[in-house]
Amino acid sequence: MKFACLQENLAKGLTTIYRAVPTKSTLPILSNVLLIAEEGRLKLSATNLETAITTHVGAQTEEPGSTTVPAKLLRDFVLNLPPSTINATLKDDILNLTSEKTKSKINGVSSDDYPTLPAFGAELPYVELNPIAFSDAVSVVAFSASTDESRPVFTGVYLNLSEEKLTIAASDGFRLSEKIIDVKEGKLKNFTVIIPAKTILEVSKIFSGSEESIRFGLNEDENLALFKSEDTLIATRILDGQYPDYKRIIPTESELSVEFSPVELLEAVKLTTVFAKDNTSPIKISFDTKGTMKIGLTTQEIGEHQSEISAQVEGEPFEIAFNSKYLLDFLNNVKAERITLKSKGKLTPCLIKPTETEDFIHIIMPMQVQGS
Amino acid sequence: MKFACLQENLAKGLTTIYRAVPTKSTLPILSNVLLIAEEGRLKLSATNLETAITTHVGAQTEEPGSTTVPAKLLRDFVLNLPPSTINATLKDDILNLTSEKTKSKINGVSSDDYPTLPAFGAELPYVELNPIAFSDAVSVVAFSASTDESRPVFTGVYLNLSEEKLTIAASDGFRLSEKIIDVKEGKLKNFTVIIPAKTILEVSKIFSGSEESIRFGLNEDENLALFKSEDTLIATRILDGQYPDYKRIIPTESELSVEFSPVELLEAVKLTTVFAKDNTSPIKISFDTKGTMKIGLTTQEIGEHQSEISAQVEGEPFEIAFNSKYLLDFLNNVKAERITLKSKGKLTPCLIKPTETEDFIHIIMPMQVQGS
Repeated sequence: MKFACLQENLAKGLTTIYRAVPTKSTLPILSNVLLIAEEGRLKLSATNLETAITTHVGAQTEEPGSTTVPAKLLRDFVLNLPPSTINATLKDDILNLTSEKTKSKINGVSSDDYPTLPAFGAELPYVELNPIAFSDAVSVVAFSASTDESRPVFTGVYLNLSEEKLTIAASDGFRLSEKIIDVKEGKLKNFTVIIPAKTILEVSKIFSGSEESIRFGLNEDENLALFKSEDTLIATRILDGQYPDYKRIIPTESELSVEFSPVELLEAVKLTTVFAKDNTSPIKISFDTKGTMKIGLTTQEIGEHQSEISAQVEGEPFEIAFNSKYLLDFLNNVKAERITLKSKGKLTPCLIKPTETEDFIHIIMPMQVQGS
Repeated sequence: MKFACLQENLAKGLTTIYRAVPTKSTLPILSNVLLIAEEGRLKLSATNLETAITTHVGAQTEEPGSTTVPAKLLRDFVLNLPPSTINATLKDDILNLTSEKTKSKINGVSSDDYPTLPAFGAELPYVELNPIAFSDAVSVVAFSASTDESRPVFTGVYLNLSEEKLTIAASDGFRLSEKIIDVKEGKLKNFTVIIPAKTILEVSKIFSGSEESIRFGLNEDENLALFKSEDTLIATRILDGQYPDYKRIIPTESELSVEFSPVELLEAVKLTTVFAKDNTSPIKISFDTKGTMKIGLTTQEIGEHQSEISAQVEGEPFEIAFNSKYLLDFLNNVKAERITLKSKGKLTPCLIKPTETEDFIHIIMPMQVQGS
């Protein structure tokens, strides 16, 4: 193997595949990156057996070949190297790298021992996703998934395609996000899959800067979802199980409707949580038809706090209490000028959404608090 | 107690005193900040019994008084509050704080239970230090102190005043920094003290933005060093013990003298340490009278690396190995256009200093490595 490539390109490629390198694995070779020098390009791959990422970097290849070397070492090295041309030669499983003022040798392991990686077959049916719309959708949905592995489907993000609309949803049983985006339907027709939330966040980060559309395909024989741009392929395990019929908890009517600035609420919630014992404390919100919203918290041993922000309140006001973490997650992830909150009662699912948006909703289950 | 002050001022004061609040203490009241409302100002204090900090914030005081409240809570709260006037009233040990749109109550503890804090007596002799010169000196010296509590004097910074020159030095037995600055001598005459390195770093950070000179005094009865600006007083414990006579290890002659750019060496060392097993690996440096300096490292199981930078080399070159952490500490803390390294042999103390500077020196003990 013998190739030359630019430090900037190799650094970018290594950063992309590094998201799939496991921090710990029972299979030591997985902490390596698989390097394959092909005609005119270098192929980089990594997998943690749940997610596999392959990307390509332009290279002048004098002699094709392959090896695997420690991914962290190579990434740290290339990221620290100044912009330059890197020349690579493999001899006896040792990767020799030289640049203008450096010479390095990295001990490699034969690529024969590396697991086989999924491919996006030419025949695989796919739909096309706009990378920006997809990344935005993931960012307002995935935070609602659970991290509790005891109920695996809740750790996933639900994807449903129907009539060129892709519904993306996630819930941990106490809150729910649902976003609907348009897709360019192709040969892949209506489907429903659940993809681990952690993975779909990685996918969205990798493709968020992309300009070309993403091809999304399903390989149901191997239980894989595949995302592909021109250079990069991400294959990820599909979660087994039936996603709960969450649509039925979406409230359809409300007694109270409140509109406010999310930036003001975020500031008020941050101030209020300073007085909380932990980050799941109930934050009480009360409303006033004269146009205010009060955000308060009392913690016996610490003290109490109340902030006031302006709001347009319609209906008969009552006090609602929310888990502070849920409020912060929503306000930190969802960007909008104005937010509308609709509730039917202090203990029924509460709907929160950007006022001007029809394709995104968030639902939070209020908390019951003493004395309210 | 009743006072009003500006959020910005209170935030600044709390940030200053917070450096002395212990993260854990057997005396719970030490996690509180002592607030004393005086005529025209609010006095804030904190102590971990090693270091005590008192600072003052302008305030309109309607009713003098004092209390203590959790320092972290008050700091987090005030830092999150938007710029505003904060009105404070104490009632039954509860501190009521109101600003334009917020109302809070913080449970306090009577100030009677707070330890007595050191004062800078009007009669205390002092010298005057320039805050910038002092902070700069601390930053190039204190990193050389040890963190190993088994030899306490090495965890301290040595201060010696003699003929209007203040010598500041620190060493962990393997490296040494010494910086000499001018002071305006006052009634405090020649002295030698050792101050914990951690504390003197805090002091230098607090005063680094100050424009007025710092008064430095010693209260030997109470074993305290005191630093005072107009608003702020920092009192810190002096370390017992005799500082070793480090002057005798400062090399006076050399066989090899090398001049180079510290920025280039820092980049090369960073690249090289990627190949290290841990952050104390020996980095081998070799020289070439034609004008190069090679920085290399071999780690059996990982691989090897060599970077080259340009250097002016005088004398008979030999290879020297340094602990990578020591090189990085020096290069990360000492800013200069050019650095000169002087050595008498591969295993004798090596002198490194900014080429154009006469008042600062750094000494590193080289490492012995196999095969060299």
